[in-house]
Amino acid sequence: MRPSDRTPEQLRAVTLETGVNRYAEGSCLVSFGHTKVLVTASVEENVPGWMRGKGAGWVTAEYGMLPRATHTRGRREAAAGKQTGRTQEIQRLIGRSLRAVVDLKALGERQVLIDCDVIQADGGTRTASITGAWVAMATALNYLRAEGVMKVDPILDQVAAVSCGIFADTPVLDLDYEEDSNAEADGNFVLTGSGTIVEIQATGEKRGFSRPEFDRLFQLAELGCNDLFALQRAAVAAAAAR
Amino acid sequence: MRPSDRTPEQLRAVTLETGVNRYAEGSCLVSFGHTKVLVTASVEENVPGWMRGKGAGWVTAEYGMLPRATHTRGRREAAAGKQTGRTQEIQRLIGRSLRAVVDLKALGERQVLIDCDVIQADGGTRTASITGAWVAMATALNYLRAEGVMKVDPILDQVAAVSCGIFADTPVLDLDYEEDSNAEADGNFVLTGSGTIVEIQATGEKRGFSRPEFDRLFQLAELGCNDLFALQRAAVAAAAAR
Amino acid sequence: MRPSDRTPEQLRAVTLETGVNRYAEGSCLVSFGHTKVLVTASVEENVPGWMRGKGAGWVTAEYGMLPRATHTRGRREAAAGKQTGRTQEIQRLIGRSLRAVVDLKALGERQVLIDCDVIQADGGTRTASITGAWVAMATALNYLRAEGVMKVDPILDQVAAVSCGIFADTPVLDLDYEEDSNAEADGNFVLTGSGTIVEIQATGEKRGFSRPEFDRLFQLAELGCNDLFALQRAAVAAAAAR
Amino acid sequence: MRPSDRTPEQLRAVTLETGVNRYAEGSCLVSFGHTKVLVTASVEENVPGWMRGKGAGWVTAEYGMLPRATHTRGRREAAAGKQTGRTQEIQRLIGRSLRAVVDLKALGERQVLIDCDVIQADGGTRTASITGAWVAMATALNYLRAEGVMKVDPILDQVAAVSCGIFADTPVLDLDYEEDSNAEADGNFVLTGSGTIVEIQATGEKRGFSRPEFDRLFQLAELGCNDLFALQRAAVAAAAAR
Amino acid sequence: MRPSDRTPEQLRAVTLETGVNRYAEGSCLVSFGHTKVLVTASVEENVPGWMRGKGAGWVTAEYGMLPRATHTRGRREAAAGKQTGRTQEIQRLIGRSLRAVVDLKALGERQVLIDCDVIQADGGTRTASITGAWVAMATALNYLRAEGVMKVDPILDQVAAVSCGIFADTPVLDLDYEEDSNAEADGNFVLTGSGTIVEIQATGEKRGFSRPEFDRLFQLAELGCNDLFALQRAAVAAAAAR
Amino acid sequence: MRPSDRTPEQLRAVTLETGVNRYAEGSCLVSFGHTKVLVTASVEENVPGWMRGKGAGWVTAEYGMLPRATHTRGRREAAAGKQTGRTQEIQRLIGRSLRAVVDLKALGERQVLIDCDVIQADGGTRTASITGAWVAMATALNYLRAEGVMKVDPILDQVAAVSCGIFADTPVLDLDYEEDSNAEADGNFVLTGSGTIVEIQATGEKRGFSRPEFDRLFQLAELGCNDLFALQRAAVAAAAAR
Repeated sequence: MRPSDRTPEQLRAVTLETGVNRYAEGSCLVSFGHTKVLVTASVEENVPGWMRGKGAGWVTAEYGMLPRATHTRGRREAAAGKQTGRTQEIQRLIGRSLRAVVDLKALGERQVLIDCDVIQADGGTRTASITGAWVAMATALNYLRAEGVMKVDPILDQVAAVSCGIFADTPVLDLDYEEDSNAEADGNFVLTGSGTIVEIQATGEKRGFSRPEFDRLFQLAELGCNDLFALQRAAVAAAAAR
Repeated sequence: MRPSDRTPEQLRAVTLETGVNRYAEGSCLVSFGHTKVLVTASVEENVPGWMRGKGAGWVTAEYGMLPRATHTRGRREAAAGKQTGRTQEIQRLIGRSLRAVVDLKALGERQVLIDCDVIQADGGTRTASITGAWVAMATALNYLRAEGVMKVDPILDQVAAVSCGIFADTPVLDLDYEEDSNAEADGNFVLTGSGTIVEIQATGEKRGFSRPEFDRLFQLAELGCNDLFALQRAAVAAAAAR
Repeated sequence: MRPSDRTPEQLRAVTLETGVNRYAEGSCLVSFGHTKVLVTASVEENVPGWMRGKGAGWVTAEYGMLPRATHTRGRREAAAGKQTGRTQEIQRLIGRSLRAVVDLKALGERQVLIDCDVIQADGGTRTASITGAWVAMATALNYLRAEGVMKVDPILDQVAAVSCGIFADTPVLDLDYEEDSNAEADGNFVLTGSGTIVEIQATGEKRGFSRPEFDRLFQLAELGCNDLFALQRAAVAAAAAR
Repeated sequence: MRPSDRTPEQLRAVTLETGVNRYAEGSCLVSFGHTKVLVTASVEENVPGWMRGKGAGWVTAEYGMLPRATHTRGRREAAAGKQTGRTQEIQRLIGRSLRAVVDLKALGERQVLIDCDVIQADGGTRTASITGAWVAMATALNYLRAEGVMKVDPILDQVAAVSCGIFADTPVLDLDYEEDSNAEADGNFVLTGSGTIVEIQATGEKRGFSRPEFDRLFQLAELGCNDLFALQRAAVAAAAAR
Repeated sequence: MRPSDRTPEQLRAVTLETGVNRYAEGSCLVSFGHTKVLVTASVEENVPGWMRGKGAGWVTAEYGMLPRATHTRGRREAAAGKQTGRTQEIQRLIGRSLRAVVDLKALGERQVLIDCDVIQADGGTRTASITGAWVAMATALNYLRAEGVMKVDPILDQVAAVSCGIFADTPVLDLDYEEDSNAEADGNFVLTGSGTIVEIQATGEKRGFSRPEFDRLFQLAELGCNDLFALQRAAVAAAAAR
Repeated sequence: MRPSDRTPEQLRAVTLETGVNRYAEGSCLVSFGHTKVLVTASVEENVPGWMRGKGAGWVTAEYGMLPRATHTRGRREAAAGKQTGRTQEIQRLIGRSLRAVVDLKALGERQVLIDCDVIQADGGTRTASITGAWVAMATALNYLRAEGVMKVDPILDQVAAVSCGIFADTPVLDLDYEEDSNAEADGNFVLTGSGTIVEIQATGEKRGFSRPEFDRLFQLAELGCNDLFALQRAAVAAAAAR
């Protein structure tokens, strides 16, 4: 039934490759099928002006899409002179999601800057970004501890995200572009390793949707995130083993 | 327990005053307690370039906050030279919410432009905006039908919105600013008169939250929206009676 | 002869309502007929960088128009990404007019920020803004003295403003939009309570005008401002009595 | 009494040199003492979009100041990425002043674009710009008639401008920078050759000023403009004789 | 002597991988050692407004650097709201270099848009971009011919580029970042397959340099480009064989 | 053969007039035939933030073109809200060229800001700017030494620039606009008084060009710069003699 022949509860092939940038403290190339996002985590020994002297750190994110990440070329935001509302909405979501699982006091007065750059887009770029960003952040902070810059691990929990939607009146997990552009409704679910909700954004695209439909989307998201948590742990462990 | 002495399932005093702008096709001054938003609905006999010739209309929204709507003066976005990410996120949400209940084909090649300007902000400005915007849009389109410009009513359903949150570990309806800035989690629920979901945005602010907590927030939102739907109908009927 | 049936020397109905914003130190909703401007005066305990350490304060103003304040919807300046030349010209005029009647040394190193937001526009928004801004500023500074923040009253005089113009070859006071858009010439006069000139801006719109015509406009402006000064005093006194 | 030893009714040395730009249809280097403005008039065979098809032309102006036109270097507006409010105010004034003496119907569907670039600034740059712009525009339109592009002369009258102010409590004509920055009040008067008023902008800088003071400023402006009209006619005649 | 232990006339390891983007008509991931640039060539069936109706096509380029492509994170240009002067200079150079070897008439009224995004930067990003861009463009145009969209091959010649510089008083080929930031002088040479010069940009960084030094840089560039031309041909042939 | 009847190795008439701005520490009106650039050198007793406390100074340049400097009016960059890529490229080149001949340590913690404003453009504005900027800078720094502000002369050498190109298959010196817009290739050469190269930018415009052609362009540039160096010395000496 799905254009990709997946079952309703099946993720696309997901890979999380670390160590893909020679300079960044942490990095991860995350793929959900044809969607590919290059994430770097940069650690700077300062915080934004409004946070100075509070003895706490900050985690923030920026998001961008290469002009030809998509089927037809989009406008380069740097050339247009501003980020679209969509871009700003996504980068705010990524930042909130990561901060939800970091003890900012334990981080100390330093900043983790996450850059998510979409190399190829086939739906689900924001949830892939969050999933990969946690890996990039964790490897960066592990690196800092290995270097003796930090003593404690400020990461409190895992966080991962996945989209779900109602396609041809069936709730399905992990929409690709073809599904996403025809879905009746879709939602992005950001969940923690311990099972709590960080963020839910669910929207009726072609029609309103019912409470039972929403409940099924939620259930699919929990299934998907459980797989993603295992992949994240494996990726961070592999990076540590190098 | 609530700073305002309300019960957990109690809305603030809500009023929806129509006919507050002499020039606009529709208008509504919506108040949720001390939160006041002036909404106008302007109808233009054209559509954005990318929609021309498709025989369908469009509904879009812009949102702004007067600099001193808040406890301390904020920067005027026009002077800053750009709208913040928050502003863009909100105005995109308002537009999506209204389009969810409008038959754009039946609207014809014309455009409804909603302006939501926050005169005073005490929490919940985006949900108040959506609730008032539906009233402004409905009175504008009723006016057009009364004038003979349109024959059919393109509005398919009501839409209203309310925020809920977990304050002092208790789920409560319709957060004011004091609650909102201390809530463990909050959510904005956009629902239709016929009981379907248009949009849910729920975020853990101070901690992740559980599925049962989410379910209670949802239940409170349904209660609140039912009251709002009745107030909307009364406001539109009163406008029509003038 | 006038579209509004007023005599040449008749103002529109003018009201100055104070206490219209719960958070601002001072506020005033000023109406000249259908023209309505919401003015807030915010006091901040700092001054712009270039004034620091000089032992003097500053008064400045910003001006904006809600998109549907006018007959047809105008573009939102925040969305356009810049303020028009007209907006900047007006806000500079408002700031100059207020500073002309304030002893900046006596104000101390603090700043009065005036926001004039036009809710509905039917001509004369800049002169209404100045007239209301003086009331908002005076109530704000009275409030600060009542709170013990300041000892002396830095306000040296009243300032009010009114437009005059030549409509159908007759000099008339307080142009509304219909007159304004058809006037041969018009002028804005900013005068003080003690009878001196703060600013005159007079322009031939459809034709040059003569010295005797100018003198009559000036005379009308003096008449109008005298009425406005009385209304300002009454509004400030009423605010103080609350 | 004046820093420049001029009498109160004495202009600075004024020169109007035409033919100073090899490509422009008309040009004029105007000097008022050390104030020097290079004005070009460019004629384009089109009008702005909102004027198309109305059978009338348009006259507009832009104004700029070279960064080191002033005692200390100012910021280059092109580098800053926007024109200041002052710049916009001035260029709007120049455009209005010229349009007041042009029959836009007789001009035909073409546009005169005036560029006023201040090479050196010693006070009075906006009034010098207007005075020189009329010469540049007149030579450009004479050139077009000589070339047979136009038949009729669309210029209805001369327009010139001068500043006056109250310096050391004495009304004086044509303020230089030293006077301007210490004046109690000043005004810019834009008058036509036939004696009518195009625009008056008068401002109390250090104090309000009285009606008799204003009347004396006006009288000085009339004296000064009469001299400027003669110089303008001589400059245009000299250009025609070449 | 070189930090990388290369001989003065030795290029870094250069690879040109095609088919790296699923949607673009042509793509190439070019590496010069640790410098990696992802290049896509998008073909659009239109030309910029100023070229319409001339029966010729256009080739243009945009360039960007991911924020963490460099040792320390740089500011994202889209967030800053503008491209730096350096970025604009580079993208203009890439466009000119490609147009030098394309018959724009033979291209027809279509446009090749090249996007060069630097994934990792270790010196020589602009020359790597040009070298990879030719490959991306050639594969895109070959693809269009294979699809029957175009009949003729509009590519007239190969173009490649390499940097050379004077490091520790020795002319060397293909500077990496460590050499580049300490070079006395450097130059970028853009040459064609048939041995002509498309562009030379040579700059004394720490000192002026002599004519014999320049001649040696030029000679090194010719050597390097000859290797690059062979690699380009192999990459395009391999792409065609797929 | 040349449209201007010059021989291939003949410069246009070049003049370098100093003392053309009353306020700037140094100034020079440079003409190459009909190309006229007004250059000012402003000295400020501070350096950009990133250079503070390093005991060294800075030299930087800005470049602009008056809208009607050219045959048809161009857009004013300040009105457009940004500088073009071409403008930024040129001003970076001017700054680099001057810094190549200044001992920044000897300059001390102060800044020389060069403004090059093109009054009239007939080709070669960037090379004329560099040639005139050296004169403006030298007179400014001589003035500072004469005033006792500085003791040592931080200028190490002269720098001048000229364009050469291949016109009608003949290498020629100092292209004017008519030649420049039809040249097969052109180059800008920035050379020092002691014979070293500061910068070479050479581009094939209509075709690639050969090594012997490049060598001839270089030779012409050396001839031209030798004349320019003599004119620069004479201009600075004349300024000192005043």
